[in-house]
Amino acid sequence: MSFDVLQDKIRAMKNPTVAGLDARIEYVPAHIREKAFAEFGPGRKGAAEAIWQFNVGLIDALCDIVPAVKPQAAYYENLGWQGMEVLERTIQYAKTKGLFVIADIKRGDIGSTASAYAEGWLSGTKINGETFKAFDADCVTLSGYMGSDSIKPFLDAARIENKCVFVLVKTSNPGSGELQDIVAGERLVYQIMGDLNERIAAGTEGKYGYSIAGAVTGATYPSDIRALRKRLQKTFFLVPGYGAQGGTAEDVQFAFDKYGHGAIVNSSRGIMCAWQKTRRDGLDFADAARHAAITMRDDIQKFVTIV
Amino acid sequence: MSFDVLQDKIRAMKNPTVAGLDARIEYVPAHIREKAFAEFGPGRKGAAEAIWQFNVGLIDALCDIVPAVKPQAAYYENLGWQGMEVLERTIQYAKTKGLFVIADIKRGDIGSTASAYAEGWLSGTKINGETFKAFDADCVTLSGYMGSDSIKPFLDAARIENKCVFVLVKTSNPGSGELQDIVAGERLVYQIMGDLNERIAAGTEGKYGYSIAGAVTGATYPSDIRALRKRLQKTFFLVPGYGAQGGTAEDVQFAFDKYGHGAIVNSSRGIMCAWQKTRRDGLDFADAARHAAITMRDDIQKFVTIV
Repeated sequence: MSFDVLQDKIRAMKNPTVAGLDARIEYVPAHIREKAFAEFGPGRKGAAEAIWQFNVGLIDALCDIVPAVKPQAAYYENLGWQGMEVLERTIQYAKTKGLFVIADIKRGDIGSTASAYAEGWLSGTKINGETFKAFDADCVTLSGYMGSDSIKPFLDAARIENKCVFVLVKTSNPGSGELQDIVAGERLVYQIMGDLNERIAAGTEGKYGYSIAGAVTGATYPSDIRALRKRLQKTFFLVPGYGAQGGTAEDVQFAFDKYGHGAIVNSSRGIMCAWQKTRRDGLDFADAARHAAITMRDDIQKFVTIV
Repeated sequence: MSFDVLQDKIRAMKNPTVAGLDARIEYVPAHIREKAFAEFGPGRKGAAEAIWQFNVGLIDALCDIVPAVKPQAAYYENLGWQGMEVLERTIQYAKTKGLFVIADIKRGDIGSTASAYAEGWLSGTKINGETFKAFDADCVTLSGYMGSDSIKPFLDAARIENKCVFVLVKTSNPGSGELQDIVAGERLVYQIMGDLNERIAAGTEGKYGYSIAGAVTGATYPSDIRALRKRLQKTFFLVPGYGAQGGTAEDVQFAFDKYGHGAIVNSSRGIMCAWQKTRRDGLDFADAARHAAITMRDDIQKFVTIV
């Protein structure tokens, strides 16, 4: 089952981190931007191609350090179809480099609509009896507000493809508590969401004991993560909030089980925009990203030992 | 403010309905499919172009009957970037025909990511100081599980553009109760979501009294809608579930205020796939859709009088 694939990669690299590929055009170093605008025009196409070049540089620099990348769909959708075309290319390229790709899409819909999303991002769409894959990620993030109907179609697709999903449980943003922390009987809303998610995926556990339905659990709430780790023993965690959002390696350690398994920590701007702190105009963006990824790995290794 | 635009169109047509544009390739009549596959190949491009032709036919047939259309992003994403390109074209074309376009995307993310989505779907993205619009809908659907952080960036974009949003409150699917109907203190989770949404948008009410943050409230739960109409007096409702999902005109009447304002009812397959019931191989798909839309309008008019 699919978190096995990710956990194997994490073990091989001794690095439970995922690098975000969330480029706004402003995050792309000037020399790449200017070249792309000159070649493809100063609009959406030029911006999309600049981001593509930036992504290729990041992927090449990171693929022997981090096991996974996480492109955030919003930063491709805001460039329209040209952005989506670059997202397809980025996912494909990352996979050819051996990276596990988590498409951060946070989709949440039901029935045949959820199935269509699952086709687009995981299993491919049938046209005249032939299957055509579009974004073809290894894993997607989902929102479960609409209930199990909005998760199950993705699990069906994931099971067939040996893929997996992460469902939003406890997020890392300041406003996350407004709904997620509401007390409902003896549980909080996010605990209900987490329990529901683990129940839906029961029976899909792989060799590490984790089901194909993981959970997003933010690093800005370490005591919550510790409790969730205990509560959801079959749920793999995606932990955002490290670095830019204030979460530390000491905080995220509680997301892991006693073998150092069962979680992956995200950093986006901390790696992708590391060049902004070296004062070399981004000419060193790939080295800066690689250095930041190594520093993050070593930082987490101080608190997490992966067996 | 923006629901004024929609309500004005609804009043002019005496028709509070929105037609879904949710085409799977199987829903496109054979004569259109075959022509597109012959011209553009039997893959994603051919399927996307077939759906484009189908959409144009539907829009032409419906634009003087219904005030709005609602393309569902999933049915374009599952064809990858070619599908997204057709979605851009479809939104633009519907607007040139005077239709109000609700992009059913159910996005839900935070901070700069939410802003990027809002750029992509409502306000446009700045590249080198110039703004480029991508999907450019009049309105989008959103998920608020992550809290107000995930709604506010869209309201900021909507306010500037005279646009609006619908946030998932009580959905029409069987599993919607698993999270949404949980009792939390004196309220249910969906009531908390609805209250939160109305509070966030306070002060943005237009001439009909509705704020720019509407709510999705499913037609399969009429007693819930009646209570929500009373509870959320400044919230415009998008009502899915009519027809295929079992909701009737008698059910949906409770979504409207005493002037027959404040709500719009969706039908997707009931209109789009009406040709499947006429046994004419889809040659009459446009007429069949138009006839179905007129029937739906007349059906709702029996229960709702729009002042």
